Amino acid sequence: MNKPAAPSARTRVRRLPERAHYDAHRVAAIVDAAMICTVAFQIDGAVHAIPTIHWREGDHLYIHGAKATRMLKALTEGEACVTIALADGLVLARSAMHHSMNYRSVVVYGRFERVTDADHKLGSLRTFIEGLYPGRWDTLRPITDKELNATGLLRIALTEASAKVRDWGVSDDTEDLDWPVWAGVIPLHSVTGEPVTEADSVGREAPPTRFG
Amino acid sequence: MNKPAAPSARTRVRRLPERAHYDAHRVAAIVDAAMICTVAFQIDGAVHAIPTIHWREGDHLYIHGAKATRMLKALTEGEACVTIALADGLVLARSAMHHSMNYRSVVVYGRFERVTDADHKLGSLRTFIEGLYPGRWDTLRPITDKELNATGLLRIALTEASAKVRDWGVSDDTEDLDWPVWAGVIPLHSVTGEPVTEADSVGREAPPTRFG
Repeated sequence: MNKPAAPSARTRVRRLPERAHYDAHRVAAIVDAAMICTVAFQIDGAVHAIPTIHWREGDHLYIHGAKATRMLKALTEGEACVTIALADGLVLARSAMHHSMNYRSVVVYGRFERVTDADHKLGSLRTFIEGLYPGRWDTLRPITDKELNATGLLRIALTEASAKVRDWGVSDDTEDLDWPVWAGVIPLHSVTGEPVTEADSVGREAPPTRFG
Repeated sequence: MNKPAAPSARTRVRRLPERAHYDAHRVAAIVDAAMICTVAFQIDGAVHAIPTIHWREGDHLYIHGAKATRMLKALTEGEACVTIALADGLVLARSAMHHSMNYRSVVVYGRFERVTDADHKLGSLRTFIEGLYPGRWDTLRPITDKELNATGLLRIALTEASAKVRDWGVSDDTEDLDWPVWAGVIPLHSVTGEPVTEADSVGREAPPTRFG
């Protein structure tokens, strides 16, 4: 099988390229499965990185925040690198060296653009809430123009992106296979616990989330 | 209550400073609770960020990788920013604006140093494995000098670090409190699933992990 081509030099996975994927469908699925990304950027030549919640619409990853932050300003003025990582399993081998993790990760390079059109912003925030809690948007106290205006919305294209996935079993050295210790994969999952209802909201029911 | 002081200007939390913590104990607890961090750094003035597994020993966060990677080289030659984020809960308010997340996050600034002393490296890798799987190190096929030598080990001091935590209920506007929709917090947890034993390891038992 030919290895797929990376969309750019900085996107090409150099370490363990057999784990690399560059197709948009695979990248989108990992972006959707995660809730938090880390956005790395520069201010006056110094590196900063901030974890933030994200969502996807089509070919873009969206983030939001108060309009006037340093971060939102820096992100539209320079290049950024967005990373996502999901831990899927602990890989236990017979040697320390071959212990590993199953994971799905994405790295995106590019420049964020500010979304200023009010309808675009409104639609996008709706997609964000509905993505987490299907059906909830229309049940909420409607967003005001002032709130919408105070919200900074940025998006970055998912074109210069790569995914890296490990989703298989143990890769021990052949001569270690009969070493007398358990080897295998212990899956990791994210689950929701019992909802904690606000005192003045008792009697209503928690909505379904996309986490089940 | 006086706000605690940040260890440096770049470490000071500017957005929502009421969520900020700078004490070493709090930072260490979040580093320990997470398994993956994101390391942001520069190569020739361009920002890169890579998710990687980490562990803590005393006042340092450790990462490892193949010795000759661009990343390990870049990390000892320039400043880095390490971030950690744990999603603890979904906060559902009566307005879209006040939806939020409970989380614990850490941001560390500084420069990584390479650990080259063989005993230090060996002890550190042991701490790493034992931290995930208590009692496992001594049951493994012992690490060879060649393997130890091929492993690059870096650490960064947790001195220039800040934590940010949201761990409370819904903060709705007073006038929205009787809006007829459920409000509360849905906790998120990471759990382990049924171990998948390697074909040639059947009959042995999966070890306990620190995830239970």
